[in-house]
Amino acid sequence: MATVATTNRQVRLAARPVGLPKASDWTIGDEPLRELAEGEIRVCVSAISLDPAMRGWMNEGKSYIAPVGLGEVMRAGGVGVVEASRHPGWAVGDAVSGSTGVQTHWTVAPDRDRHAGLAKIDLRLGTATQWLNVLGMPGMTAYFGLMDVGLPGLTKAGETLVVSGAAGAVGQTVGQLAKVKGLRVVGIAGGAAKCEWVVKELGFDACIDYKGGSVRDGLKEHCPQGVDIYFDNVGGEILDTVLTRINRRARIVVCGAISQYNNTTPVQGPKNYLSLLVNRARMEGMVVFDYADRYHLAVAELAGYLKDGRMKSREDVVTGGVDVFPATLNKLFSGENFGKLVLSLEG
Amino acid sequence: MATVATTNRQVRLAARPVGLPKASDWTIGDEPLRELAEGEIRVCVSAISLDPAMRGWMNEGKSYIAPVGLGEVMRAGGVGVVEASRHPGWAVGDAVSGSTGVQTHWTVAPDRDRHAGLAKIDLRLGTATQWLNVLGMPGMTAYFGLMDVGLPGLTKAGETLVVSGAAGAVGQTVGQLAKVKGLRVVGIAGGAAKCEWVVKELGFDACIDYKGGSVRDGLKEHCPQGVDIYFDNVGGEILDTVLTRINRRARIVVCGAISQYNNTTPVQGPKNYLSLLVNRARMEGMVVFDYADRYHLAVAELAGYLKDGRMKSREDVVTGGVDVFPATLNKLFSGENFGKLVLSLEG
Repeated sequence: MATVATTNRQVRLAARPVGLPKASDWTIGDEPLRELAEGEIRVCVSAISLDPAMRGWMNEGKSYIAPVGLGEVMRAGGVGVVEASRHPGWAVGDAVSGSTGVQTHWTVAPDRDRHAGLAKIDLRLGTATQWLNVLGMPGMTAYFGLMDVGLPGLTKAGETLVVSGAAGAVGQTVGQLAKVKGLRVVGIAGGAAKCEWVVKELGFDACIDYKGGSVRDGLKEHCPQGVDIYFDNVGGEILDTVLTRINRRARIVVCGAISQYNNTTPVQGPKNYLSLLVNRARMEGMVVFDYADRYHLAVAELAGYLKDGRMKSREDVVTGGVDVFPATLNKLFSGENFGKLVLSLEG
Repeated sequence: MATVATTNRQVRLAARPVGLPKASDWTIGDEPLRELAEGEIRVCVSAISLDPAMRGWMNEGKSYIAPVGLGEVMRAGGVGVVEASRHPGWAVGDAVSGSTGVQTHWTVAPDRDRHAGLAKIDLRLGTATQWLNVLGMPGMTAYFGLMDVGLPGLTKAGETLVVSGAAGAVGQTVGQLAKVKGLRVVGIAGGAAKCEWVVKELGFDACIDYKGGSVRDGLKEHCPQGVDIYFDNVGGEILDTVLTRINRRARIVVCGAISQYNNTTPVQGPKNYLSLLVNRARMEGMVVFDYADRYHLAVAELAGYLKDGRMKSREDVVTGGVDVFPATLNKLFSGENFGKLVLSLEG
């Protein structure tokens, strides 16, 4: 922090990707930092969150949020420190999170930019990268997806929850929170290392390695009482397989479908969806932004679990600055990341 | 009723159909009527309900109800009159409904046969065929599917409901009940005659002829505020199309998927299911049997609407006795029936 930057390095969306994003879909460049206007602050971004949802934001067309425009800075959640302020409520040195975008410096007007998601973060509750993980959007997604849509305990105590992407950002918190709430928890993840971590470190009851064996057999073995809640981050074949194992009044939380995001063919619909009828079960979508007025409650609860050791978190922190953002994003889609994928802009 | 029958003519399942059921999947024959045992009654069956769900009962494998065994009398709901009784609670001449099966005479022990669904019916509330329609299983399915799963009015007054199979047994009651509850109601049906009846006679706001035009265009025209409840009886392409028009917090009631029941290829999964995520919407299955302890409440309400003219019903009554059951059943899958399909065993 000894030298004050004069330029802002940014990653902009250059083209709408077809399939997996490629280098030519991005432009990376610098622009000079401008003077702050009255009411603005500037945040030096220290880390950026990489999320599967980003792939959807790159597509044209209506979704739960407007697409990133061509030529615009890529949307991203991030954390950083206020380095300049012309707003009385925000002081230099304040740690913050928000929709920083993929750039080294974020200029924002706290009172005027309603979609900025700007908030101070308390680094005593968690590290900066934990504020992008369990205390950030993925953690909020896990919390409200499980508690408000998954409805643990709806049919009986000790229900069985299955979560895909179990070692990922959302999955790790879903599973641990479900354990705290008294559920049997079975993860699905890719590779023996992730599965071992999920069971040994996070305390899941079991984890099925979809790359190393049959998900169907794994569910039969590890969910002898069937599946009451399926928290789906992946869609595709795994969703269809879980549908064959659900219990009466099961809830499927449709959080994401990472297996389908880079399809150049139509999304694979769940051909076993009539299992919902047979089992009087429910498949329901959720978008974390709807719960913004209760984030503080979830943060307080989850930070408590981090503090008392009932919950752990793992971030996969990649260095190299915004220039490596394009390549790093694609790690999500190959499943290369191990834990919540974060791009550090420091050092 | 002048001559007393001595034989029971029955339709039995001879083979599990592949695709559309064919004549060789059935055997039709007579067996002598036996003496009643203590506690039994015999019902002379006057009419039998033909339902899309029957196709599922003919398949092997676990569902919400056990399959009909090979060689067994085909399961069916029916109505009739008690013609002999060795049970003090049931008198000769009582009008009843229940799981009669496809046969002319049904022998049942009211206290012992727990799955018989035997109940007295009050012909002042509706005709015998209405007791197979709006006051029977289709009406109960419509009532509880709409009220308990569809949750009319969840997001606002005057929500828009779309129902497929609108002129069918379930659809006609769903739409009319939704009108009573203050919703905008748009049907989807096959053919101009059905659509005209649904609008002019039943009072739906509009009806889209899926055989005569584009469902997508019809939804755009007739659901300018989007779709809040979709009551799905058909599945397939129509489900996928409606998914593109749902509103935030929409509810899709998965009641059936008649377009898929005779598939010899896998069921077509809804490739637009991620619309559930974007719209925080829900797709939920229902099985009418779960609401048995509240049937009497729904019957009372629906009979009131029949009486005061707010609700009408239409039954497509086929004559010819049990022998024409196989051919009549298949009318459901071609959409040839107009109204609730009933097989009369009288005359």
